[in-house]
Amino acid sequence: MKKQKISDAVIHRLPRYYRYLDDLHNKGVVRISSSSLGAKMDITASQIRQDLSCFGEFGQQGYGYNVAELRAEIGHILGIDKGHRLIIIGAGHLGHALLQNFDFEKVGFQVDSAFDVSPELIGTSIRGVTIRSMDELEDYVAQFRPNVAVLTVPQNVAQPLASRLIDLGIKGFWNFTNVELSSHEPDVFFEDIHFVDTLLTLSYRISRN
Amino acid sequence: MKKQKISDAVIHRLPRYYRYLDDLHNKGVVRISSSSLGAKMDITASQIRQDLSCFGEFGQQGYGYNVAELRAEIGHILGIDKGHRLIIIGAGHLGHALLQNFDFEKVGFQVDSAFDVSPELIGTSIRGVTIRSMDELEDYVAQFRPNVAVLTVPQNVAQPLASRLIDLGIKGFWNFTNVELSSHEPDVFFEDIHFVDTLLTLSYRISRN
Repeated sequence: MKKQKISDAVIHRLPRYYRYLDDLHNKGVVRISSSSLGAKMDITASQIRQDLSCFGEFGQQGYGYNVAELRAEIGHILGIDKGHRLIIIGAGHLGHALLQNFDFEKVGFQVDSAFDVSPELIGTSIRGVTIRSMDELEDYVAQFRPNVAVLTVPQNVAQPLASRLIDLGIKGFWNFTNVELSSHEPDVFFEDIHFVDTLLTLSYRISRN
Repeated sequence: MKKQKISDAVIHRLPRYYRYLDDLHNKGVVRISSSSLGAKMDITASQIRQDLSCFGEFGQQGYGYNVAELRAEIGHILGIDKGHRLIIIGAGHLGHALLQNFDFEKVGFQVDSAFDVSPELIGTSIRGVTIRSMDELEDYVAQFRPNVAVLTVPQNVAQPLASRLIDLGIKGFWNFTNVELSSHEPDVFFEDIHFVDTLLTLSYRISRN
């Protein structure tokens, strides 16, 4: 497979390809043309072909894509077969909602444990995941070596907590705190979730109409 | 102000401009050049000038932008001064987290009420917002005329519920159900939140490294 610099725009479209292909796969669809996939996703067939060409050769002229194969290839590109192990920091309502409803395993993340400071939560478990005291964090991470942390904690502790976790070896942050986090480590990555951006986009659309 | 077709890419950058300008404004920054703003946001100065030119003339050659003015202008473009009124359907953990932590008012949305089917939740309130029975939905919407609904309900009821709300006159959906919703009404808009997309992007980045 060719190696080249992939643009952020392409990277951000990959998960959406994966979602659509996964859905088609679950519905038993075996083959799909780039134009049919494009129509479903509201993008052009040539955009799809161009995006996928960044990662190698997929599909066959006139025969379209094999759904199961392309789904597996894109899953592989996305790293869902890398065995990521994840801890959740903050088991309040949002942490609880993620533990209860989000299918981490389906996209290759094993949820190892959750942590909180609240005495009422420590020792309880949600869908089989035990909530531990934050005091156990250092020992736990040293022993079990998770590589990703989900942050659902108050804003004022977000950056110090991220720094503490980076020191412990965490490489990826799924960050729901609405604080833009940063690190000087080149191999540490943040995905900041800004709920407000999508609500403002909705506001724009209904206001213009 | 000129009217022209605005691309989705520009629309999706607007909320981020607003967030950064709001932050600068709160920090007391009065003026900023497009290059300084670009450096903060990790985009080019010319991208910023080009995006903003879709909406009119902002800033002064050599003097940069007045932060308070540009923030207000972008807020206006985004429709945060339109008096949107919103209901939350589903007061489980995610609905609860949004009611408790998300600052709807700050971006121009008044939270009118929340609805759920659970007898334990009906009649309680979170930050002053009463949780009502789903049986009251029709009467409530007819009387108070909210225009936006937040959906944090199970997947199997998402589309029927959206159709029911569209019939009642709801125009915008902030949709956390992970189901892609649709409508034939041209003036109804959906913002679908797919948590999984950002987790997969994170997976990609840490896996490639």
